[in-house]
Amino acid sequence: MQTPPISPKASPLASTPNVRTILKEELMQACKDLQRRGKGKSPQTPKQSPDSNSKMISVADYLLERLAQRNVTSMFGLPGDFNLGFLDYVEDHPKINWVGNCNELNAAYAADGYARVRSGSLGVITTTFGVGELSAMNGIAGAFSEMVPVLHIVGVPSTSQQKNRPMLHHTLGDGRYQAYQTAATQVTIWQEYIGRTETAAEQIDLAITKCITEARPVYLALPTDMAEQKISSERLCTQLSDSQPPNNVHMEEFVLKTLYDLVQQARGNVVVLADACIMRQGIQNEVTEFLHLTGFPVFATPMGKTSVDETWERYGGIYVGELSNPEIKEAVENAKLVISIGSIPSDYNTGNFTYNIPKERYVELHSSWAKVQHGLYEGLGMKQLLPKLAQHLREFRPLANKIEIPRFESPAPQEKHNKISHAWFWPRISSFFREKDVIVTETGTSNFGILVVPLPKGSILVSQILWGSIGWSVGSCLGAALAARDEGLGRVILFVGEGSVQLTVQEISPMIKNGLKPIIFLLNNNGYTIERKIHGKYRKYNDVSNWKWSGLLDVLNDNEAFNTESFVVESKEEVDKLLNGEKLKDDKGIRLVEVRMDTLDAPKALERQATASKK
Amino acid sequence: MQTPPISPKASPLASTPNVRTILKEELMQACKDLQRRGKGKSPQTPKQSPDSNSKMISVADYLLERLAQRNVTSMFGLPGDFNLGFLDYVEDHPKINWVGNCNELNAAYAADGYARVRSGSLGVITTTFGVGELSAMNGIAGAFSEMVPVLHIVGVPSTSQQKNRPMLHHTLGDGRYQAYQTAATQVTIWQEYIGRTETAAEQIDLAITKCITEARPVYLALPTDMAEQKISSERLCTQLSDSQPPNNVHMEEFVLKTLYDLVQQARGNVVVLADACIMRQGIQNEVTEFLHLTGFPVFATPMGKTSVDETWERYGGIYVGELSNPEIKEAVENAKLVISIGSIPSDYNTGNFTYNIPKERYVELHSSWAKVQHGLYEGLGMKQLLPKLAQHLREFRPLANKIEIPRFESPAPQEKHNKISHAWFWPRISSFFREKDVIVTETGTSNFGILVVPLPKGSILVSQILWGSIGWSVGSCLGAALAARDEGLGRVILFVGEGSVQLTVQEISPMIKNGLKPIIFLLNNNGYTIERKIHGKYRKYNDVSNWKWSGLLDVLNDNEAFNTESFVVESKEEVDKLLNGEKLKDDKGIRLVEVRMDTLDAPKALERQATASKK
Repeated sequence: MQTPPISPKASPLASTPNVRTILKEELMQACKDLQRRGKGKSPQTPKQSPDSNSKMISVADYLLERLAQRNVTSMFGLPGDFNLGFLDYVEDHPKINWVGNCNELNAAYAADGYARVRSGSLGVITTTFGVGELSAMNGIAGAFSEMVPVLHIVGVPSTSQQKNRPMLHHTLGDGRYQAYQTAATQVTIWQEYIGRTETAAEQIDLAITKCITEARPVYLALPTDMAEQKISSERLCTQLSDSQPPNNVHMEEFVLKTLYDLVQQARGNVVVLADACIMRQGIQNEVTEFLHLTGFPVFATPMGKTSVDETWERYGGIYVGELSNPEIKEAVENAKLVISIGSIPSDYNTGNFTYNIPKERYVELHSSWAKVQHGLYEGLGMKQLLPKLAQHLREFRPLANKIEIPRFESPAPQEKHNKISHAWFWPRISSFFREKDVIVTETGTSNFGILVVPLPKGSILVSQILWGSIGWSVGSCLGAALAARDEGLGRVILFVGEGSVQLTVQEISPMIKNGLKPIIFLLNNNGYTIERKIHGKYRKYNDVSNWKWSGLLDVLNDNEAFNTESFVVESKEEVDKLLNGEKLKDDKGIRLVEVRMDTLDAPKALERQATASKK
Repeated sequence: MQTPPISPKASPLASTPNVRTILKEELMQACKDLQRRGKGKSPQTPKQSPDSNSKMISVADYLLERLAQRNVTSMFGLPGDFNLGFLDYVEDHPKINWVGNCNELNAAYAADGYARVRSGSLGVITTTFGVGELSAMNGIAGAFSEMVPVLHIVGVPSTSQQKNRPMLHHTLGDGRYQAYQTAATQVTIWQEYIGRTETAAEQIDLAITKCITEARPVYLALPTDMAEQKISSERLCTQLSDSQPPNNVHMEEFVLKTLYDLVQQARGNVVVLADACIMRQGIQNEVTEFLHLTGFPVFATPMGKTSVDETWERYGGIYVGELSNPEIKEAVENAKLVISIGSIPSDYNTGNFTYNIPKERYVELHSSWAKVQHGLYEGLGMKQLLPKLAQHLREFRPLANKIEIPRFESPAPQEKHNKISHAWFWPRISSFFREKDVIVTETGTSNFGILVVPLPKGSILVSQILWGSIGWSVGSCLGAALAARDEGLGRVILFVGEGSVQLTVQEISPMIKNGLKPIIFLLNNNGYTIERKIHGKYRKYNDVSNWKWSGLLDVLNDNEAFNTESFVVESKEEVDKLLNGEKLKDDKGIRLVEVRMDTLDAPKALERQATASKK
């Protein structure tokens, strides 16, 4: 273990923010000194004896500085006696805010939602050994499935306890201290146990780098005694890179040529399918440029919704295979070539695997590979390829511009009754949205209902269609709202069913405590309507208890310190009145709108999916 | 696959309860016929071609009948599209009630609480693939740690999907369909995947037998298409056995003789330590008989509280090593021989491993082994040993009766202020308890506060001291209350902190919907007081949002269909008035009492434990 050359106190950084700020400035100065002398270039080669100009800082602070460098401003999780020491450093950190969730699953959902909205950053959750980390596992697995960069920091027993393995609380009682980390290997792409100061910095760097480059969850175990151990700050001078390895030049040129030929053969009759990984890999700009230069018609998948600007004149709506609107299905499947960008071909994202596009007319671009017709190109990443491809194909723009695109619009139907139907509600709500709004939708009717609604420029749709864990949207909304605040985005608007919200309802509490002001549309349709559509239409197991939703915010308010207001709407008129009025627009606090709907009413897309699922 | 000889319809049992009742009678008749002819003796040897007198029933019904045979009356969990088919059978079952929880973690806690109170039975939770089962993992791990028999049934994709592994929702997107079951191997003792009709019955029998004999969680994956497949009912004629293998006669005789000699050397100066596994293994009767025949003084550990009758004249209170009251510590550690029954020597159960009892004076009896001084006797189970040991040692009763025992009582102290202190509250509440009450306490101040309170005859304390997952008590209370109703026990009384309850608060909703009437004492002390005592006394991360607790039941009530009432008490007088009055005694519905306490006030036992933990 290295001797701390500077800090005589055990944990000087943990005392007050002032001391920390001073040390932070010193640290930055040391980095500059080092850089002037051409050092600290590669974070992959740590020095055994740190340069005298670098500082000794705690492992906890090293980790937090690394996260701050990636623009992490919020950390989610709960205290537990194996992470309390680390949380001292978090609470004292000048840039990172400890959010304090109500439970760990919700915290994982929040970290996921945060990462989805906080562009280029990552979500971070800290839990405690066993009880905390296992509670979070479903949320972490969701981040794996949906490719969201979430770092899971787990406070674990001290290094000496790890060796002696006493029967501590939060253990399985049989000495298997590794059991939880072993379980985590199933749902994370990487795991690090920080057991030695000598490798701590490198391990932390590797964990974060893996998380951000592969956009998937990573597990980091931090023993109680390691948080305050001192290590050199030297590596912090070099930012971690999230760039992908460069494409092979020859392969890239070959693919560009091949694609040029294919587009030429297709006489520019090309359609682009925008999918989820455009957002996960943060390549919205590259895709936008590609679309603008080529003029190719573009459609999005359900998971790709808002990966491209839905007000773009060449945008045609949502393609879901057989479940698409007929004019969209025709437009996509009649194209001579389909270029799919960042696809996740799951059941619900592809209309139950019903793309009617032969391989000969299909090109897939992904983060680290591409497929052109039958040919696979490993290592070829879309982020670097797309700008070049745009230049190669821009000459087809005049041809592309001739292709007609179905207009993506969704007028509210005239219905004879005054009930709030899904067919009416979603088109109606569309005019309520503004540019840069963040819209969070829950698995269930909301995920399907939102598909038909054109969303404004710069808006972000946050949904979880592959993993589909009910209740996720509430935690996710908390994280998304914190990220939206940092990113200067607009309002955060959540759509969730009254069945799903019951799983995670307490997470509205930290929204209030953190001064967030989401508008929550709570669709009350007397149970799990999505399940009823699949199986057990009148079964009791699809019922849920009917809570008094209008009283909820009042109960969760922190000593009544915050402005909250709740509404109930039961008719189209009431919806109109509320949406047109000022009450939802005052931005003074969180708002909850209970929207009462018929038990078996559902968006058309869900009806179609349920029928397909049954088959 | 076998041809169904009787049922021409796909799933006749699923249609109506009437049809099911008739078939159930037929089934019982078939069992009788078979038994008359000397068949169906061994569930370990299934027949390939079923006897023509046995019935063909669905796999789902086979499983449910097996559970019903073990007196399972409640099944916990949530619907999900991979378990809906199975839930049809559950909902239609005449004896098993689908509880319908608010989330899967809470459901696992409920199954755990149910199993702890429903003597000789097991807790059952049903979840769906991925999202559901992983949410439950912390609760399942807790059942592993604390040795509670919980069966986790997971609805998984069909057998054909398991082979082809399409990118279904709830998958990780990479085709690893086995990932969740693999993770479950870390926290369950056994896993079965029911993939074939030929072995389904045997697998189900094995899973349940493992669960009940080893008193630990078992994982059972049921593909969607398997629930309704038909199998022979023949094995159902033979009840599953939960008996342990017989002790080796020679080893047993040797140990009985050795113990006799030791007690004789000790001149009957023997103390018994009653611990958790007396309850987990259901040997309260054997232990009671042993204590009554021998007259040995008996003390309980924190996890063993209520494993022996606390009103028994030879009972002396709670022993926790160095953290014990001095007179108890002296009584236990000065005994010439200590016989520990069913111990779980965890940190919080042993005063941080501070038993001051030399091995030469220590005997441990366990479910399948014993340790006498330094000698280990593998395979020697306490259930069979204890009755014989009682006979061997009863002659020492006159000697044992001479040993004085500290009186276990806890008078409320006279305090000058009118605040509700822990020192006053717990003794005060003791007179509120009645015989056969089920008392559930949360990790935190409640688990420590309850230790000093003598509990009435036949009462059961339900707590989770080894696993210690905050929030557990709320889900557990739901399960315990359902079990208590079936067992004809008394009231269910929950003590939980306002920090812990926020993790699992929604589970109060199914309590209400199921007509349960627990009395909930919600100790409001402004945050995680137990954590403050360990680390971060004034840290923000130990704060929680202050909810309006008195409004909670009103929000969670199902269409205001149930009787609920809430109270707030802030002074000793208000506590006295409430406890002495009629309002908590009317048994008309659930009651919630918010008990406001000082932020840093804590039971003495917690103060001691926190000081020990810091060391």
